[in-house]
Amino acid sequence: MPADRIFNFSPGPSVLPLPVLEQAAVEMTNYRGSGMSVMEMSHRSKVYLDIFEETKADLKRIMKIPDSHEILFMQGGATLQFSAVPLNLIGKTGMADYAVTGNFSELAMKEAKKYGEVNTACSSADRNHSYIPAQEDIGVSKDASYFFYCSNNTVYGTEWKYVPETGGVPLVCDMSSNILSVPVDVSKYGVIFAGAQKNMAPAGMAVVIIDKALVGRELSVTPKLLSYQVMLDADSMHNTPPCYTIYMLGLVLKWLEKQGGVEGMEKIKYEKAKILYDLLDDSTVFSGHAESSSRSDMNITFRSKSEELDSKFIKEATEAGFINLKGHRVTGGMRASIYNAFPIEGVREFAGFMRKFEMSNC
Amino acid sequence: MPADRIFNFSPGPSVLPLPVLEQAAVEMTNYRGSGMSVMEMSHRSKVYLDIFEETKADLKRIMKIPDSHEILFMQGGATLQFSAVPLNLIGKTGMADYAVTGNFSELAMKEAKKYGEVNTACSSADRNHSYIPAQEDIGVSKDASYFFYCSNNTVYGTEWKYVPETGGVPLVCDMSSNILSVPVDVSKYGVIFAGAQKNMAPAGMAVVIIDKALVGRELSVTPKLLSYQVMLDADSMHNTPPCYTIYMLGLVLKWLEKQGGVEGMEKIKYEKAKILYDLLDDSTVFSGHAESSSRSDMNITFRSKSEELDSKFIKEATEAGFINLKGHRVTGGMRASIYNAFPIEGVREFAGFMRKFEMSNC
Repeated sequence: MPADRIFNFSPGPSVLPLPVLEQAAVEMTNYRGSGMSVMEMSHRSKVYLDIFEETKADLKRIMKIPDSHEILFMQGGATLQFSAVPLNLIGKTGMADYAVTGNFSELAMKEAKKYGEVNTACSSADRNHSYIPAQEDIGVSKDASYFFYCSNNTVYGTEWKYVPETGGVPLVCDMSSNILSVPVDVSKYGVIFAGAQKNMAPAGMAVVIIDKALVGRELSVTPKLLSYQVMLDADSMHNTPPCYTIYMLGLVLKWLEKQGGVEGMEKIKYEKAKILYDLLDDSTVFSGHAESSSRSDMNITFRSKSEELDSKFIKEATEAGFINLKGHRVTGGMRASIYNAFPIEGVREFAGFMRKFEMSNC
Repeated sequence: MPADRIFNFSPGPSVLPLPVLEQAAVEMTNYRGSGMSVMEMSHRSKVYLDIFEETKADLKRIMKIPDSHEILFMQGGATLQFSAVPLNLIGKTGMADYAVTGNFSELAMKEAKKYGEVNTACSSADRNHSYIPAQEDIGVSKDASYFFYCSNNTVYGTEWKYVPETGGVPLVCDMSSNILSVPVDVSKYGVIFAGAQKNMAPAGMAVVIIDKALVGRELSVTPKLLSYQVMLDADSMHNTPPCYTIYMLGLVLKWLEKQGGVEGMEKIKYEKAKILYDLLDDSTVFSGHAESSSRSDMNITFRSKSEELDSKFIKEATEAGFINLKGHRVTGGMRASIYNAFPIEGVREFAGFMRKFEMSNC
């Protein structure tokens, strides 16, 4: 980490790989001899379409996306997908199941109620979303149009360690905060979507991976740009896509492959998270929010012995160059988001800082 | 223009000011000592909120936006506003008027039909959208919820030279392709919106300027992120906004003020367009598509004596470093898009190239 960079634990937008930013800077005024910035390129031009196609091909290869599925680049982040999913899918039976394991799945469920009947298939609200319900505690409706869950809860720091079994009901998964950190069997999913700004690219895009067999049933009130059918038919170019964000995703994917792909990311994420969870397990000052079996490797949520001490910790950490550690307002305490691009040396240095703080405040 | 840059006539995404791109490159890995790229900043952090607030303040000052109006940064470009406008506004009376002067207003009208009754207030389809109807040819419905028009037609190269009088019906205007090129009396408008990728910033954002008195009447099926009320209440941060695109807009606005603001842009755009229109008026080889009184200063549409000669012209122009001149498929011929950031020396050089071509092919 160069001296002029900081350790940024922001939950999103988040740290990007430094080599990616450096390449973006070099290519900013003249992309590889084109005489233009990528920002200035017509999305219909060959030079841009090459970037677009290569990014899609790289994502397909890295995530092993089968031919039954297609990638859509959409705008509005994951939040607009909370609307797009029911608008496109709930028309099959008029009803859908939601697993509520945090505030984003709660928001997604509320939005779906505008468009059909919605069931709570399971909820972790009884223990402040500190755990993921077990398979046997999920009630799947046989005639649900889809089953929705969020695989990693950024706010509470929990993560699904298994793929829910739904007996043929299509799985829809918000993977915003753990996509590309672990191998995924895409064929099991009807729709995977992810806001780009955590593990993929700058803010301003959702990557949607859709089983093509599910499109074509949208409600009549669906805004044209939210129609999976329209986006599929136009290869994400019904209108101008977020071209530069797609280019940045492409650079991140090249970097990710050099780190060993999602398999490499999976290995390093366990190592990084273990450093902090081991510390929390041994600590007399700090304690984790999530129950051990449901802990997220992306977002480590914890608190100290008091709110005053939390504030002191955040203040001193910030002064020491560890920033954006304040927990979400619904959980309080602290949160260290350590997505793919967060360097392991930053985790080690932060653990050292935590230990020192502990000794001074035990 | 440095030797390694090209003259890019793309209708969108389009050329950006070179000093803006150079500054973005310099600030890419470490924004002004923050230790981060703007792409990596939490949208809730002070360092980012300073960028956000300054960009909004600059746009308000430059466009003289009155306190009755507010700026929203939304995603999905102008196309998603084709849905957002009726979803938010048509509920008042269930009906709206559309001026159809090109393919984008046509698309906007089609989309609005999903949500209410829609009237064609006027149309230029009878002469292939080569002109803008006069005030006396517009039929405004007294009980329309709003009157929609597109102030500059990118595809056909026509531009409204007056603000339609609607007798109190709120004006909604798609200014995607001429915003910031001419002073606008914002107080006359209910909603102004513009996709960013022509005159403002990279693709992936719509700037929406809304009369606050009009919000709060959205249809119940409105996706939450398309609600002007939600976006207004959250100051465009109901979810993560397209942070980096907003930063780029901020840099463009600083550059624009140095050029004399919209008044400066207005002066130079007349000069730039006049060079090409004078050439077309005198030419024996080339002729313009738009009628003289309705010509756009942003998009110059023209053709030569035959489709074969058009192809030859585009090919030779590309080889000479003048790119993206092919007209839209519905008009054919050529289109030179010369937005704010397109340098006047590029227009002069291109005119020189056209004259040479003319002499060789008359």
